[in-house]
Formats: sequence, C-alpha cells, structure tokens
Amino acid sequence: MSDFRQLWDQLAPIGRDPDSGGYLRYAWEPAELACRDWFRAQADARDMPVEEDGNGNLVAWRGGGDGPAVLTGSHFDSVPHGGAYDGPLGIVSAFLALDRLPAEPRGRIGVAAFAEEEGARFGVPCLGSRLLAGVLDPERAAALTDRSGTTLAEALGRTPVGRTELLDRVSCFVELHVEQGRALDQPVGVGSAIWPHGRWRLDFAGEGNHAGTTRMADRRDPMLTYAYTVLAANKEARLRGAHATMGRVDVEPNATNAVPTLVRGWLDARAAEAGALQALVEAVHKRAVERAARDGTAVTLTEESVTPEVAFDSGLVGRLAEILAASVLPTGAGHDAGVLSAYVPTAMLFVRNPTGVSHSPAEYATDADCEAGIDALARVLGELA
Amino acid sequence: MSDFRQLWDQLAPIGRDPDSGGYLRYAWEPAELACRDWFRAQADARDMPVEEDGNGNLVAWRGGGDGPAVLTGSHFDSVPHGGAYDGPLGIVSAFLALDRLPAEPRGRIGVAAFAEEEGARFGVPCLGSRLLAGVLDPERAAALTDRSGTTLAEALGRTPVGRTELLDRVSCFVELHVEQGRALDQPVGVGSAIWPHGRWRLDFAGEGNHAGTTRMADRRDPMLTYAYTVLAANKEARLRGAHATMGRVDVEPNATNAVPTLVRGWLDARAAEAGALQALVEAVHKRAVERAARDGTAVTLTEESVTPEVAFDSGLVGRLAEILAASVLPTGAGHDAGVLSAYVPTAMLFVRNPTGVSHSPAEYATDADCEAGIDALARVLGELA
Repeated sequence: MSDFRQLWDQLAPIGRDPDSGGYLRYAWEPAELACRDWFRAQADARDMPVEEDGNGNLVAWRGGGDGPAVLTGSHFDSVPHGGAYDGPLGIVSAFLALDRLPAEPRGRIGVAAFAEEEGARFGVPCLGSRLLAGVLDPERAAALTDRSGTTLAEALGRTPVGRTELLDRVSCFVELHVEQGRALDQPVGVGSAIWPHGRWRLDFAGEGNHAGTTRMADRRDPMLTYAYTVLAANKEARLRGAHATMGRVDVEPNATNAVPTLVRGWLDARAAEAGALQALVEAVHKRAVERAARDGTAVTLTEESVTPEVAFDSGLVGRLAEILAASVLPTGAGHDAGVLSAYVPTAMLFVRNPTGVSHSPAEYATDADCEAGIDALARVLGELA
Repeated sequence: MSDFRQLWDQLAPIGRDPDSGGYLRYAWEPAELACRDWFRAQADARDMPVEEDGNGNLVAWRGGGDGPAVLTGSHFDSVPHGGAYDGPLGIVSAFLALDRLPAEPRGRIGVAAFAEEEGARFGVPCLGSRLLAGVLDPERAAALTDRSGTTLAEALGRTPVGRTELLDRVSCFVELHVEQGRALDQPVGVGSAIWPHGRWRLDFAGEGNHAGTTRMADRRDPMLTYAYTVLAANKEARLRGAHATMGRVDVEPNATNAVPTLVRGWLDARAAEAGALQALVEAVHKRAVERAARDGTAVTLTEESVTPEVAFDSGLVGRLAEILAASVLPTGAGHDAGVLSAYVPTAMLFVRNPTGVSHSPAEYATDADCEAGIDALARVLGELA
C-alpha cells in the first residue's frame, strides 16, 4: 500500500454519510474536529509544533529559524455530501511531500488547515483565511450563525482575533487542490487565476395561501417567480459564457398544500472578469423583478459575498510551471489561496480530476495522480524553502 | 367579551410562532397535545365523557341513550405557520353551539377532534378520520415517519386500531369550517362537495457537481427540471380551470455552491372531477419528462395520496340549506368530512373568509361571522339531534 493510500484511508471514514457516500464535515462539528485531531497527530509524528491562529486555522511548522516560511495546505471542511478530495487532498499531500524532502530543509515550511473554506456552516466561504488576512471583521464574523442558531464565536470558543502577524512570517503560499472541471490532460497543473465569483440571496415574497381553495388568479405565489429566475439565471450564464447556479432554496412554510409565503433562493455566479459577473447578476435580477410584477410577488437581491478576480503571483506561477514542466490554467472555484494571494505571493497546484465532478460523493482522482501531486509539491517546496 | 372571543383567546397562544404569527400545531407534538388538554377540560366542564378511538381521535359525548348520535367537530393540527381558524374554529364552535341548545337535547351529540387532518407531520392528510373509517391500513399508518424519523406508532403510543364501531353509533356528521376561497357573500354557507384532489411527489435526479468549475454544458442540473415543472404545472392548471401548487421542495445537498444531486418537489392538484384531475397530473408529468431529457436528468412521479370527488349527502345538504336559508357551495379543500361522507351522511358549514387567505398567519374570519356560524351550528344540531 502506498504511503498516500495509507494516510488517505485514515481520513476516509471521518464524517462520511453511509447513505450518500458523501462527506458531512462542517467546521468545528465533530467530524471536522476529528480531522483536526488527525492533523495534530500527523504533526506530532513529524515533531512539528502546531499553532492555532485565534481564527480557527491550524499551522504545523517544520524547521527552525526566523526566516520567512513557505506555507502550504488546504482545508478539511466539506459542502454537504461533498467529495473526499476537495480540501483534504492538499493537507494529506503536504505532510507526505515533507516526508519526501531531505530531513534538513533549508528553510521553514508550514502546513495549514484553514477553517470553513466551503462556507457550508456559517455561509461565508474562506472564513478562516479571510479572518487571517484581515478582510473579514472579527466582530461581524463572531455573530454569524449556523442553521441551528449557534454563533461562530460559540463554535470557535472565542471571538476570532482577525489579522495577526502570522502572514508576515510567510514568504509564499502554495495550495495543492483537486482540479474540478475536466480542465487538465496531465496529472498536475499550475493554477494561474480564480474567476471573480460571489453569492447573492434572492428573497421572493408572496402571500401564503391554501393550495386547494385559492383561485389561481388570486394567488401571489413566490415559487413561480423563483422557478422563472432559476431558468433565467441558467440561460443568462450560457449566453454569456459564464457560470450561474441556484442550488439552494429555503421555502416557508414548505408544505405540500400551501402556497408559500416566502421562497429564498441563492445565486452562485462566476465569470471570467468582474464586469461580466456584474452584468450577469444584474441581468438575472432584472428578469426576476419583471417576473415578480407578473406574479404579484416581490423580489429583493442581497449580495452575501463577492470575491474579485484573483491573478496568482505571476513570478511564482511561472517558476512552478518551469519546475514541473506543467501547464497553467485558471479556475472558477474559490480557494483560500485566492484570499491569501492579496497578502503573500501565492500559487496553486491542481491534481487531475478525470470526470470533472466535484462537491459530490463521485468526486475522484486516481491514486497515481495523487502521488504525482505529492511529488510535484515536494519538488516545489524543496525549491522554494 | 363574547363567549366566542373568550374561548377563542384560550386557544390562541398555543403553538403560535411569535415571529410569523402562524401556528405550528403538529399531531401529538406539545402544542397539539395542549389543544387536546383544552378539549378535555371543555368536555369536563360540560360533563361530557371523552372517548379516544384508538386512532388518536377524540370524541366528547353529550346526552345519554343508545340512539344514533349527531357528530360534529374538526381538528386542531395546522400546516406549518398556518392560520388560527382552519380546524379549531369547528371545535370551538361545536362546544359553544352545545351551550346554546336546551339543556336536555333529544338525542346524543358528539364533538370530535380528529388527528393529523393536514398531514403536516406524517404526510397523509385526514389520517385520523381515514383510520377511523377503515380506509387506511393501521399497520401501514403505524410505520409512517415524520421528518425526524419518529413513527406514527411511537407518536400515538400504540399501533392504531383502524375501523371501530364508533361510526356505527353516528347518524350524521356536520363539520363547521372556515371557508378558504372568497366563495361566500354571506356569513354562513353549506358545503355540497369536495373536488377530487391529491398529492404527487416528483423526484428530479441529476448529477451533483461544483457550481464554480462545472461547465454549463457538462451539467445535469435537476433544479432546472424542477423549475420548469413548477411553471408548467401552473400553466396547465390555469388552462384547465383546475388548481396546481408546488409549495414544497427538498434539495440535496441544498448548498449554494453545488449543483444539486436531487430535487424533490410535491404537486398538489385539484380539479372539478376525477378525469380532469388525472389529465392535469399526466400533462404536468409529461412536460417534466420532456424537460428532463433536455437537462440530462431523470424524473419519477409517485402518487402519495388521492382523494376522489366527494358529494356530500344531498338530503342532508338540502335540509341544512333550508334550516339556515343559506347558499350551497363546493370546495377545493380536503376535510375529515370528505373521508367520513362515505360512511355516514355528512355535510359541512362554512364560515365566511373575507380575504380568501388560509393556510397562512393572515387567515381570518370576523367575530360576528364566527358567532353566526355557532348559531347556525346550534340550529342544525337542535334539528338533527
């Protein structure tokens, strides 16, 4: 059994739903805490002291000295019923890459596990890295609530501290991640940029009523406006060569025999540049408002988070591509690397995804490609550290 | 304060959500059990022994003798965030109508509180009356589960007994209910029929995937098929003069940044006669299947419950209309009266709903119309008992 497979199998059962085969690893909930315990054990086994940054992020440090460190790593948390690779592959690969380096590296290397990258629990993706980078107000973050009403401060056990001097000790950050869109025809590629993307909430308000007795003409049914907007968002994204998804919806009262009072839908939109993204969201909103007038409903749009276009450090990207003789590609997915790239030179390594499926139990990479990813990361860390 | 307002205000706080103002009274959950306690207290105050029928239905009996009884009453349970009147008005009015009869009525009168009329907890509307009438298998009912996995047998504390001889002791059933569709221009009307209606579940299966990285052309997004079907159901119902509602949806994984794996939607459909209802559901299903082919998804239709057309006892309806000089009207809403009408002569009294809103916190009837309803029910019980 390869060292990758051996380590991978330790994590595999943690938080896996036996019915879907997908993962339910939410920040600071038992499954994700078990992953953190595993992280601490891996660090201990390598004599790497673990630092908690006051924002829920962990970093295991290897090598002494005061010189700037090379940081690598990723996250443990998943989307609901997500795949095994998105996040954990970057952490497992980091520890194994260290094992393949000479015992005495030239400089310090840190392995990070960032908190709440998916935003599945508190609604803000890259929560941990945003706090660390100082782009999310700690007081605002502390008050975020999950679906059961628990605040982030309660989950974390404290108000997060926000920006610390940790990043000042880092010379560069390289995140290894499974690729997510059938964009690689070789085992490993180098990430060049992240499309600008964001989440918008659309509240469709109507009039709750009885499904059996209310005449169709008397209804103000917000589900109709929602449904129209779902189709409009898809069409607008296709027309523009962008991405739009409405994969989450909450309905009140969500009863079979009641016209809803409120339908709340979320729009995930991404495009190659900021202007195109803004135009896409405006087009979807305009069509929702037009339809609402027809349905007698009301629609309000709330921007929940927007991440501008990220271009990774061109010097670092070029150096990685050269070291690995690998191709360079952008991605539509947000990552902690995208947040940190504004503060330290950052790049990503992508491991091939043969089906392009991710955020799903079917998410997959071959063991051979994962091994190639570890080798690539080891070469990169060896050069940079 | 009127005796109606006094009694009504006793029930009003039980199970009311302070945010929505709507009711969360689900069968055998604390709020509905509190309503049952209130029922027993009202019966005690009137020296009416209470019978529990082994199916979760309660009947308080007034008057002795072995002769057949006139049954009245309704239900306590609500849809999620439902209104105050749907159900409880019939029970409150029943006790108050008895108070307005001579102390010594000619025959026995029963006041019933039926269990799980809305189907909000276990998914089968008119569950209690269906069990009592013997049209729902007790073993099948016992195994029904609510959203948290509790079985009906656990909630009831036993396997329901199904059909008993209770109905053999009943000469007729008159249910008073708030009207639900702006169909009355006088305080009280007499119900003549219930449209055939039912619930169908539509499972839209796609491929879970990442919202940011999956090319639009590579997606198999079941939310698109669901959205199209919502709009198609509305259009088909309008074209046919029928009712169709898709007010409930469950999504897996229901995450902002994931194309769903599964979208499960429910269709509530009603039409003036059975053939038209069947044609409506078939048309919606056909359009869903067509769209699924385009989206690369799959749709399956499951009939969850269908209630045939109910024509109430024409003799009884005519007699009530004559006693009250009231108009006669059909309804699109299911009721326990619809279930029981196959076994005992049955009719309904409707109390005017000025807005037509129901299954919503805004559901309303004026105190004056509720008083008129009590008077009407008292006259009817006095004539029939």
